Amino acid sequence: MTTFAEKTDNPLRKIWEGPKIDPNKDKKLITLQIGDPTAFGNFYAAKESIEAIKNALEKDNFSYTVSSGLKAAREAVASYVNNNDKSVQVNDSDKCFDVNSEDVIMSNGCSTALEICFRALANPRENILVPRPSWNYSTWLEPTEIVSKFYNLDCTRNWEIDLEHLESQIDESTRAILVNNPGNPCGNVFSKEHILKILEIAEKHQIPIIADEVYEFFTFPGIEFYSFSSLSKNVPILTCSGLTKRFIMPGIRVGWIVIHDRNNQLNDIRKGLLNIAGRNFWPNSTAQIALTEIIKNTPKAFLEENAARVHDHALSAYKILRETPGLIPIFPRGGMYIMIKIELEKFPKFKTCLEFTQQLIREQSVATFPGYPCFNFPGFFRIVLTVPKELIIEACERIKEFCEQNCKQSEKYLKSG
Amino acid sequence: MTTFAEKTDNPLRKIWEGPKIDPNKDKKLITLQIGDPTAFGNFYAAKESIEAIKNALEKDNFSYTVSSGLKAAREAVASYVNNNDKSVQVNDSDKCFDVNSEDVIMSNGCSTALEICFRALANPRENILVPRPSWNYSTWLEPTEIVSKFYNLDCTRNWEIDLEHLESQIDESTRAILVNNPGNPCGNVFSKEHILKILEIAEKHQIPIIADEVYEFFTFPGIEFYSFSSLSKNVPILTCSGLTKRFIMPGIRVGWIVIHDRNNQLNDIRKGLLNIAGRNFWPNSTAQIALTEIIKNTPKAFLEENAARVHDHALSAYKILRETPGLIPIFPRGGMYIMIKIELEKFPKFKTCLEFTQQLIREQSVATFPGYPCFNFPGFFRIVLTVPKELIIEACERIKEFCEQNCKQSEKYLKSG
Repeated sequence: MTTFAEKTDNPLRKIWEGPKIDPNKDKKLITLQIGDPTAFGNFYAAKESIEAIKNALEKDNFSYTVSSGLKAAREAVASYVNNNDKSVQVNDSDKCFDVNSEDVIMSNGCSTALEICFRALANPRENILVPRPSWNYSTWLEPTEIVSKFYNLDCTRNWEIDLEHLESQIDESTRAILVNNPGNPCGNVFSKEHILKILEIAEKHQIPIIADEVYEFFTFPGIEFYSFSSLSKNVPILTCSGLTKRFIMPGIRVGWIVIHDRNNQLNDIRKGLLNIAGRNFWPNSTAQIALTEIIKNTPKAFLEENAARVHDHALSAYKILRETPGLIPIFPRGGMYIMIKIELEKFPKFKTCLEFTQQLIREQSVATFPGYPCFNFPGFFRIVLTVPKELIIEACERIKEFCEQNCKQSEKYLKSG
Repeated sequence: MTTFAEKTDNPLRKIWEGPKIDPNKDKKLITLQIGDPTAFGNFYAAKESIEAIKNALEKDNFSYTVSSGLKAAREAVASYVNNNDKSVQVNDSDKCFDVNSEDVIMSNGCSTALEICFRALANPRENILVPRPSWNYSTWLEPTEIVSKFYNLDCTRNWEIDLEHLESQIDESTRAILVNNPGNPCGNVFSKEHILKILEIAEKHQIPIIADEVYEFFTFPGIEFYSFSSLSKNVPILTCSGLTKRFIMPGIRVGWIVIHDRNNQLNDIRKGLLNIAGRNFWPNSTAQIALTEIIKNTPKAFLEENAARVHDHALSAYKILRETPGLIPIFPRGGMYIMIKIELEKFPKFKTCLEFTQQLIREQSVATFPGYPCFNFPGFFRIVLTVPKELIIEACERIKEFCEQNCKQSEKYLKSG
């Protein structure tokens, strides 16, 4: 196997697609693994989006588009982003910086958008700062020999970035800071003040930011989403997003990069991004034609309601999990997941969170993703909140039972053991 | 700019999308550049394909598929390939080797399929043998530091491979032989005997073949297409194809790799291919769902008629070009293009084929791709045959006029010069 193939390790996909652990055959398997809101049929694309695709099909010749994507699609993204950034109440006199279609590169999903950014910003042996815990950015970084340097998120402060640690990780080979907000797996949603502090560090060290905002606006009631681009005055931001999460269309494979470069600091990088887009990363033509209508016609209520429903699921799960011996769930501020700390010292049977999650499948037929290897964060596991409410409750009750039976401080454990 | 970005040079896309040369404003521009049969609206996807997408849309949840693609789509490809290989009259007792869905990896277009193969087969500084002239495989190879070693196609023998030259290029670091059949830009279609000789060389040196067969079955009347997989007994073949050319759907971005590995020689490579597919290269879900019906329902007549129409265009173009001073068109056996040799010594104004094609735009408003840098083959240019017949005739007449005016041996040139 080539080094590149060997190093392209996608631990989430490997667990999800790979050889399965046998569940308890007396209990129906509940899978809280993959971050696909459509997986259980209770979240789905807006009917307006389907309509948009049908309309696009009438016009589509299935032609090649230019490497950066169809102009109409890029215009739709630019105007989407400009409107979003303006909708945020920025309390100072600075106007938002408007982007246009030339600042947008379409890609086959958001992960490809990220891959293009990585390769355009850093050479092998140079580094990009990546949060810990985080989604598996290393799958894309490792094989390229670009170094991932990790900065910590602080679970005691709503998973904010440990700013001192972030700054300490910067060195002369740092080419970008990757932020993920709202974040996977933590559900962090950074406050305006926190984002401004991050921008300050980036500005001081003159490092651009890659903002993975694929969960943009997916926040719980009362929590405001601020894009990095809406708050940055001097730091260039490459925002990566797409239709996967907010528009509930993972399968459509429509992602994008938006280049926010108010002071033209990224001219050279921009050329590099376009070169790399020349590898034909552009998405399906029907989907690109449909994009204008998808963005324009999807009702605001649809977008808000989905986040509210996930919040409701989060509350139901949290209620059970916080009373579960040996677990400390960290309530999220948005996104689609809860990260749960396992007090491993209370589970003598399990040396690692991986063993915990494997035994959870065997005993309770509940499949989750362990903090390690999935999110580079041992001692935790992640559950997905987009499954139907009754299933999330059932799953959490089974997790509780599992912990009661396996946690040495649990009353039940003491009685039976 | 990073080295990777700098080295990702797509000369075809750069000429097509980049700063344009001003055409002669008295003549309407005719663009014979990009290999997109839909570009002029005279070739288009079968109505059955559109119907298939509409049907798929009814069932589509826009869910993630596994990394290698939807199982139903992979099954459709496997059965398509098995049927194709069986349809070929192989005059010996060996049965064709059947592939199944596990042997198929779906990708976002055929170029991505090729990229996955390259990265799974060769490490940096190892080499892959690539035809010259050829489509711009280097765009994908160069930045990875996998070495392209070129073997010659022989324009005096219907662009067959110069087998001696091919064999002479093999060294201990050769990890694959890439063949393109039917070929771009040459329109080569290899005979059964020629393919058997290529396979013999590959077998002797134990090197797998990457068969870029995206133009499969696109052959002119009387010319048979043989896939490499249908003729290989012992050489593992990675066949790359998709819906782009034969099904006239470049925009759908549905490509695939089929692993033909009768003797299980590629087990390790197969794992590597799947690892790399874990970078989320899978195509749009609606298109994947539609694939079964697209393949099943597209009438054979549709597929055959398109090739016959292109043949008719080729004849019309050839008739004019072979009487054009200073040009030697090489009549193709299939595909969508004609390569035309420029006797540059007869055009004192032009040092290169690039200058020839640029001046052709300025004087005659006919845009073509020069052999260099587009196909790594100086002294030629390529025209696309899928434009409407009247336009191809008009374009070729203008090319003739251009040559008459610029070729020093032309009567007109002598009169005026």
